[in-house]
Amino acid sequence: MKAYIINIGDEILLGQILNTNAHWMAQELQAQGVDLQKILTISDERQAIIDSLEQAKGQADLVLITGGLGPTKDDITKFTLADYFGMSLAFHAPSFQNIERLFEQFGRNRRPDERYKVQAEMPEGAQILINKMGTASGMWFQEEGSPIVVSMPGVPKEMKYLLQEEVFPRLAQLPGRSNIVQQTWLCFGKGETDVSSALEDFEAQLPTAIKLAYLPNTKTGYLRLRLTAKGQEEAALVQAVQEEGAKLCQILGPKLIIGQEGDFLEAKLGELLRKKGKTIGTAESCTGGNIAHKITAIPGCSDYFMGSVVAYSNKVKMQQLGVAAETLDTEGAVSEATVRQMLSGLIKNLKVDYGIVSSGIAGPGGGRPDKPVGTIWLAIGSAEKQWVQKLELGNNRARNIEMSSSIALNLMRLFLLES
Amino acid sequence: MKAYIINIGDEILLGQILNTNAHWMAQELQAQGVDLQKILTISDERQAIIDSLEQAKGQADLVLITGGLGPTKDDITKFTLADYFGMSLAFHAPSFQNIERLFEQFGRNRRPDERYKVQAEMPEGAQILINKMGTASGMWFQEEGSPIVVSMPGVPKEMKYLLQEEVFPRLAQLPGRSNIVQQTWLCFGKGETDVSSALEDFEAQLPTAIKLAYLPNTKTGYLRLRLTAKGQEEAALVQAVQEEGAKLCQILGPKLIIGQEGDFLEAKLGELLRKKGKTIGTAESCTGGNIAHKITAIPGCSDYFMGSVVAYSNKVKMQQLGVAAETLDTEGAVSEATVRQMLSGLIKNLKVDYGIVSSGIAGPGGGRPDKPVGTIWLAIGSAEKQWVQKLELGNNRARNIEMSSSIALNLMRLFLLES
Repeated sequence: MKAYIINIGDEILLGQILNTNAHWMAQELQAQGVDLQKILTISDERQAIIDSLEQAKGQADLVLITGGLGPTKDDITKFTLADYFGMSLAFHAPSFQNIERLFEQFGRNRRPDERYKVQAEMPEGAQILINKMGTASGMWFQEEGSPIVVSMPGVPKEMKYLLQEEVFPRLAQLPGRSNIVQQTWLCFGKGETDVSSALEDFEAQLPTAIKLAYLPNTKTGYLRLRLTAKGQEEAALVQAVQEEGAKLCQILGPKLIIGQEGDFLEAKLGELLRKKGKTIGTAESCTGGNIAHKITAIPGCSDYFMGSVVAYSNKVKMQQLGVAAETLDTEGAVSEATVRQMLSGLIKNLKVDYGIVSSGIAGPGGGRPDKPVGTIWLAIGSAEKQWVQKLELGNNRARNIEMSSSIALNLMRLFLLES
Repeated sequence: MKAYIINIGDEILLGQILNTNAHWMAQELQAQGVDLQKILTISDERQAIIDSLEQAKGQADLVLITGGLGPTKDDITKFTLADYFGMSLAFHAPSFQNIERLFEQFGRNRRPDERYKVQAEMPEGAQILINKMGTASGMWFQEEGSPIVVSMPGVPKEMKYLLQEEVFPRLAQLPGRSNIVQQTWLCFGKGETDVSSALEDFEAQLPTAIKLAYLPNTKTGYLRLRLTAKGQEEAALVQAVQEEGAKLCQILGPKLIIGQEGDFLEAKLGELLRKKGKTIGTAESCTGGNIAHKITAIPGCSDYFMGSVVAYSNKVKMQQLGVAAETLDTEGAVSEATVRQMLSGLIKNLKVDYGIVSSGIAGPGGGRPDKPVGTIWLAIGSAEKQWVQKLELGNNRARNIEMSSSIALNLMRLFLLES
């Protein structure tokens, strides 16, 4: 099934709002196995709406329209669609009852006025989709010689409600529709080139109904892999995705695969610490508190995260973490010896089981021939055992901070997996 | 001047990425006085590109295309446009030199391979826009009987660079184009409703050639105001914007107006500290290092930022910051007494001139009837003088962390402005 999205709204064209509706709809359509061909963002103008519908004719099986259903005179979508399909408008009692219910629910001290009676007039011949989240009903036009045209409000929660509760169930009833089952994994530590060559044989043996996709990073350094199965019998598709997913996880292994969609490094690290009943802290120079910020983004992290010392100056490295002045003099702040001492000082002073440490040159200034911008030392571990790694990143300050923070979290995760 | 945007990219239609490019472009076009009529998001398919160009013909004066300029075989925009305009491709030395420069800059231990020679082949007859941010050059097609067609990469920073540095200056040269002069200010501390009522009289007295716009927030809690003057004589426009800008700044005052576009709180705070030759540190509980992370995002911050104690656990509050056990017992960690003690401990232990402190309940757990989620105490100041503020935010953890971090930075900025 091929689809078009038509977003109607001057506020998008004027740059006043970001079109998150189209993004959410694209994701949902993808998950439903609908092939989204085009997104048109147009102004609240009759001719622009009609041109777009004409454009979709013969190209799309489904047209999802958002916007232009409000009670003001700018909102012309309903009138334009009724004209386009040659339908007249008539008072639709269930739509008006829904409006009355909403007025009661919001405790407004007034009854819906005449504008809302107009809003409850709907095209005779369309299926009316009652919108429990707002006063504008949706419409489903299914006419000979036209794609199915669905009109929904542009308010995100209203559009989402109608799409999930009214539109997708109707789509599933259409003859000949396939089922879609999919699962996504998050990887960290290798790039797409390496992962795709490791998965070359796996991809070659996949049944034709199953596809592997490499999705763009949502966060620096992450890679997302998705298996999608498309076919008739849902149970068989679920089983196929499970079987192939197990193979994929075995090939890449738990070091590379952090978890499923949403399982970012800090979340998995938290899970591991919670399971072991251990605590952690960070001592950060070049990452400037970003590792702590990531760890504390996870609700409930106070169960295992004790705190951090952001030791930007050498004085703080010495006084709060016990780094020796001599080490800073001879080896420098960006050195293996310094991060090792920061780690042992952190574990001792904050009384934590594990620590994560960074010291490096984030840039753009501060580089030297022997230690160029992007040179970053990491140390992680416990009082008994430490791992140290030297990174050589580029000259983008924001990326250096972000990337080294994630690499440090990943090192700690790998350390906990092994211990 | 009427414009279309064509975003080419399966990744948008598959819901893999949010189309922030279109939003940013819409804002910039609005500022340039260009009338954006339509945004088309289409797949990387030859016919879809050609259909969109045909659709724009006669409707638009300018077509801005993003995407499909990468080195892989999916990327067909350049080849399609060359065909469409009947141009042949030829090796373009400046484009290849730009690629070589980028390889050197990124310190890759290899030279651009054959794929990049292909990427440097450009349509003969188009103006080539050298892309200092990436390997794909942009193209400007200005042919009889067609709108001006500009092709840019889809990578946001590359598209933004080309639009600002290459496309807008060329647009300004076109005959009959009005000049546009604009200036943007960043505010923090009040919402749009308050600011717009403060500016009601100011807006009413603006000359008709000057418009005031409230731009969407780019960061939580910030408000952007933009004056745009449109007309023929550039010098007069510059003067008018300066005069009206001075009035606007006087009405809102330096407490509300942080600075111009890009002058985020952490940047202005750094400027003030540098001017005074003073140092700063943070002691963070609920913000978990986010304030330090913001401060250290600014290059050169090591001149004034010494470090932080992220005191998530009470133990760390006591041991690293000298908060009294009794205070934590009787008043609790989220209290005025605790943040005052954290501040004095921070200033003493890290030997800094100024400190920023947070302690609160970011949520979603940990709330109590007398201290619900979103209760956050801030303290800032010096050894001699402290300011304390209690926030009552909502129950969104990420927003609570972000918003309280910015409010704390702003408090410190206001403190420095007064001292």
